[in-house]
Amino acid sequence: MATFGAEIGDIGLGRVTITTPILETATQQHGFAHAAVSFGIGDSAAGYSALTLLNEHDEVLTVEMKINLLAPAKGDRLRAEGRVIKPEKRLIVVAADVWADAGQDSTHVAMLQGTMIPVTV
Amino acid sequence: MATFGAEIGDIGLGRVTITTPILETATQQHGFAHAAVSFGIGDSAAGYSALTLLNEHDEVLTVEMKINLLAPAKGDRLRAEGRVIKPEKRLIVVAADVWADAGQDSTHVAMLQGTMIPVTV
Amino acid sequence: MATFGAEIGDIGLGRVTITTPILETATQQHGFAHAAVSFGIGDSAAGYSALTLLNEHDEVLTVEMKINLLAPAKGDRLRAEGRVIKPEKRLIVVAADVWADAGQDSTHVAMLQGTMIPVTV
Amino acid sequence: MATFGAEIGDIGLGRVTITTPILETATQQHGFAHAAVSFGIGDSAAGYSALTLLNEHDEVLTVEMKINLLAPAKGDRLRAEGRVIKPEKRLIVVAADVWADAGQDSTHVAMLQGTMIPVTV
Repeated sequence: MATFGAEIGDIGLGRVTITTPILETATQQHGFAHAAVSFGIGDSAAGYSALTLLNEHDEVLTVEMKINLLAPAKGDRLRAEGRVIKPEKRLIVVAADVWADAGQDSTHVAMLQGTMIPVTV
Repeated sequence: MATFGAEIGDIGLGRVTITTPILETATQQHGFAHAAVSFGIGDSAAGYSALTLLNEHDEVLTVEMKINLLAPAKGDRLRAEGRVIKPEKRLIVVAADVWADAGQDSTHVAMLQGTMIPVTV
Repeated sequence: MATFGAEIGDIGLGRVTITTPILETATQQHGFAHAAVSFGIGDSAAGYSALTLLNEHDEVLTVEMKINLLAPAKGDRLRAEGRVIKPEKRLIVVAADVWADAGQDSTHVAMLQGTMIPVTV
Repeated sequence: MATFGAEIGDIGLGRVTITTPILETATQQHGFAHAAVSFGIGDSAAGYSALTLLNEHDEVLTVEMKINLLAPAKGDRLRAEGRVIKPEKRLIVVAADVWADAGQDSTHVAMLQGTMIPVTV
């Protein structure tokens, strides 16, 4: 997360928003670099949303995650909204949407759907 | 890619291998950080494998990609083997496997399956 | 669709609902039979939602689709709500939710996220 | 399975092949019907491959499954080869390839990647 300069924004039960500046280094390369950055922030938001439903010292691991890229990530910052779809004891199904904000404009750039597994540490 | 310190290894028609050192920064955080790093290197290897079938100045964008995490990414370096499953004019179906190498040992840590779209720049 | 006894319900621009009775034959077998039935109705609802944005004689093909199963499909009927997330000329990103209805109760049993491609016939 | 007229072919440890005739009813409709049939046979082959590693009375449920469609399912029969990628106590990662056979010719029509969960009944 520190690598991306990401910050946690709004937090609710089963919902977390993360924002990160859009760095030129991540977008000026081959087109699939965009996928990795959007994946990283979306997966993190989804993971933190799962953590809001667990005990303080629990962790989660991503079991699997799928991302669809919807538009180029142009703008000032990326914003990911993660949410829990179905919390079970053994597995937590999560989703996330990633938006690129440029001033007042917002573009839906990616959507993710996946599974987290709780791990007691 | 530079962010991860990744290097391109073997290249064949429709096949590319990428390696990157396993950085502590990427693995000591929450468990879903591992997913983002494995996704990044796997998606890159898959993208480059698609590029081997295109003209010199063409690019590819990731349309969608799914990753299953198989094991923790412990070891000296990550190695991703990307390959083209089905090259079509409009869409290229790709896959990648990610391995964690530690000395002589190799652990299968992730597998990816997705779609790239060629873009003429 | 006829195989499942499915019927198209509400239709809007980029939105289609399909219902089908829950047949014992599809649920009394191995647990992965449930996945196939929920996939079939969800994928159909998603495909029809894409068709609402196209010309009368156009068709769509599923490029790729991912399903997460959330709960057993118990009840009287399955109901799938398909919707278009991002309509592009070349590709249409779609999603669907599948519900099992039992009297007044509704259980969220599956969610799908995928890509359709328009085909002119 | 009976709905599709499917038959189990080769069985090995962590590997199962299923075949089914290609029915006109499943292919003459909208293009996404093909996805449902290929999903059904691929998901079944993947599920049975997981069952080969479990005790006699155990079952598996599909947690999630992703399919990429590679080519139209034309020919005499569909053949799905399911295999276990990673067997864990809690989750089993599986994959499947689906082929359309027409006489001596074989076309790769779909590939699946997903997760099964063992259930003791």
